Amino acid sequence: MNAYDLIQKKRYNEPLSKAEIEFMVKGFIDGTIPDYQMSAFLMAVCINSLSDEETENLTLAMIASGRSYSLHSEIGGVCIDKHSTGGVGDKTSLIIAPICAACGVYVPKMSGRGLGHTGGTIDKLESIPGFRTDITHQQFVKIVRESGFSIMAQTPDIVPADKKIYALRDVTGTVESIPLICSSIMSKKLATGADGIVLDVKVGSGAFMKNTDDARRLGMQMCALAQRLGRRCSVLMTDMDSPLGRAVGNSLEVAEACDVLKGKTKGNILAVSLALAAQMLYIAGKGSLEQCAEMAKNAIDSGTAFERLEKMVEMHGGQYQALTKYSLMGKATDNYILTAPRTGYISSINALAVGKAALALGAGRSYKNAPIDKTAGVKFLNVAGDYVSEGDEIGILYSSSDAPMEKIASELEKAVQITFEKPERKDAVIGRI
Amino acid sequence: MNAYDLIQKKRYNEPLSKAEIEFMVKGFIDGTIPDYQMSAFLMAVCINSLSDEETENLTLAMIASGRSYSLHSEIGGVCIDKHSTGGVGDKTSLIIAPICAACGVYVPKMSGRGLGHTGGTIDKLESIPGFRTDITHQQFVKIVRESGFSIMAQTPDIVPADKKIYALRDVTGTVESIPLICSSIMSKKLATGADGIVLDVKVGSGAFMKNTDDARRLGMQMCALAQRLGRRCSVLMTDMDSPLGRAVGNSLEVAEACDVLKGKTKGNILAVSLALAAQMLYIAGKGSLEQCAEMAKNAIDSGTAFERLEKMVEMHGGQYQALTKYSLMGKATDNYILTAPRTGYISSINALAVGKAALALGAGRSYKNAPIDKTAGVKFLNVAGDYVSEGDEIGILYSSSDAPMEKIASELEKAVQITFEKPERKDAVIGRI
Repeated sequence: MNAYDLIQKKRYNEPLSKAEIEFMVKGFIDGTIPDYQMSAFLMAVCINSLSDEETENLTLAMIASGRSYSLHSEIGGVCIDKHSTGGVGDKTSLIIAPICAACGVYVPKMSGRGLGHTGGTIDKLESIPGFRTDITHQQFVKIVRESGFSIMAQTPDIVPADKKIYALRDVTGTVESIPLICSSIMSKKLATGADGIVLDVKVGSGAFMKNTDDARRLGMQMCALAQRLGRRCSVLMTDMDSPLGRAVGNSLEVAEACDVLKGKTKGNILAVSLALAAQMLYIAGKGSLEQCAEMAKNAIDSGTAFERLEKMVEMHGGQYQALTKYSLMGKATDNYILTAPRTGYISSINALAVGKAALALGAGRSYKNAPIDKTAGVKFLNVAGDYVSEGDEIGILYSSSDAPMEKIASELEKAVQITFEKPERKDAVIGRI
Repeated sequence: MNAYDLIQKKRYNEPLSKAEIEFMVKGFIDGTIPDYQMSAFLMAVCINSLSDEETENLTLAMIASGRSYSLHSEIGGVCIDKHSTGGVGDKTSLIIAPICAACGVYVPKMSGRGLGHTGGTIDKLESIPGFRTDITHQQFVKIVRESGFSIMAQTPDIVPADKKIYALRDVTGTVESIPLICSSIMSKKLATGADGIVLDVKVGSGAFMKNTDDARRLGMQMCALAQRLGRRCSVLMTDMDSPLGRAVGNSLEVAEACDVLKGKTKGNILAVSLALAAQMLYIAGKGSLEQCAEMAKNAIDSGTAFERLEKMVEMHGGQYQALTKYSLMGKATDNYILTAPRTGYISSINALAVGKAALALGAGRSYKNAPIDKTAGVKFLNVAGDYVSEGDEIGILYSSSDAPMEKIASELEKAVQITFEKPERKDAVIGRI
């Protein structure tokens, strides 16, 4: 067996066996298959795709590149994870995990840092003074047992193949491939030991998937893959034309997540969080979808979900008081008021433009391991559907660096669409698979 | 403009502009585009192909990576070149160039060494004591003017992009691509200044193209490309199921080429050589194809073609007497007689198997710059169509190394198909475009 022949096979769209796929993954990891062969192979995969069986075998080969955990038996109960394809202002993990925990479903979650308009969930949690994301596996299991959930930084021994393959895909135009995306997500979720996975596929301007058809294809493939691998899986497709919630930026998002758990915030962030949490409880076998939706809502109304968040933060060494007194997470040195350029209804706020603004303010990373300004970001005082008058304060930009606030605000202003007619209300949850 | 976007374009089969193709070629040559991006790009090209316009622009970008010559004006006459896609026992360059020269058409030829079952034309010529293939451009022009042709080693300044791209294609499963093959061949022929090109596309077990359809597609594309670039082009498709001629190996092939030019040898090697030479004379404007065929035949019968070869060899510093007294090229220290395993008609001799035998005997290179045993090879005493009796001597294996002759012979024996019925005579020239 050699890489050349396997590249040729995929080039001519011939099926690859389990052993052949393992050979490619192992060879790439141990360095016997160089980058230039792997990138040719990945391009052939992108254009000719992989069958369900090949995708399963790729996922298994990737899992085998690192360490796997059997969390179900270690923790002693059903463990459900959630994955989002990434959007602007997405702080749902901080909301749905405590909700599920409050309802008796464990959520042991490993998150990456990654690149993006804002930090990942891990970066957001690190806005809380003292919060440690680099805990041991034993601590992780203990926290999940006692708090019902824990969110820690993904360790390097989880699917190292994914890291190496993704880095190559990222520079060779081979990111957009449903089988490669599915195997990347699923391998990590399986290695960390989830019994079931809810996938949140974002659709819209601020998302990787620009239309519902592509999102549905990804969702279907993901469910098919999960089924082959003996895991429960549900997919929600949610809107990402506008940002999720009002806050975009690390500590700003933690505060908004707390507001949601305290019942203080409604809108698309509440709707998406409740839908995801209900779906997670449902695949955990907690009842009908209606019952699960009711349970999720009660976990907020009763305050039990918020209590779970406080407990988890405390067990991670974090100052849980910051979840109520947000100023403990620090305050940006500068701010700038965004005003409505004209009178009318806000019909949409372009999520991608908001993401770019947050990045420019210092909230995200444009290169690996770049430092993040935890206080930076954007908070909208108005969202899509609101009526505003010219000159009204509609948002605040925050930064502690020397970001060009005025310039960023003027770009951001263009992202806010204002119409004379009241826009139709858009559903936050577009569909489910 | 950046490589990532251009890879994506080709991945999604969008057309690339002239400037975009130039960017890829230049960037790869100057090192700003790494191997792993280029190989992903090449794989996308292989699967999604290139349009005629893109192929033309790729050819031009490749030519621009090195030096170009205007041989027509330097030499003062029509210059015709020939390219073969490569076969076993193919010594036609040594035959057709002197024929054309004898008929008043210049053939300034640059040849590569490359890898293969036997050496390239350059290696074959170096079997002649004293023959120098590393002459200067001035010497080359002088020899072409006075002998009518010259064959020298391709200099590194001719299409360096082709060398670098081919090396990558060779290890990434991206060799088989008609637009990439056409631009590779045509860029070198144009850079060395040919007015017209005859392409010999080999078809069969010992060739790159296994069937006539693929060969025809390659030929058509090649003619289309030549036309766009303002060059005359003709394509012959010739049989490569059995080796061309009786000799496979460097000095053995020089001797056989001399035999053809002396009128001592018939068979497929004569037929293919005459057809190619006639086609070259025809595109040089020497008359109708029938007239050109007659001229080519006369050049052999009159001995003028052989005289041209002698003159060319002498001007290259070679011992021209070796063209008559073949032992001056050296003799293999060992030989082994191949016998007929049964009685009947030889229906075919598998060209690929013969090539492998020649390589095993030391006649070719299995890695770049490997030394070659100029005396090694195989000479068949019988060819397809001959009737032989069990035990008849049908061939001789030569080697000056410690190659396992008996083992090679037993493999080679299997490549000789013997049937009870007389096989149908196969045309050496399958078709022309």
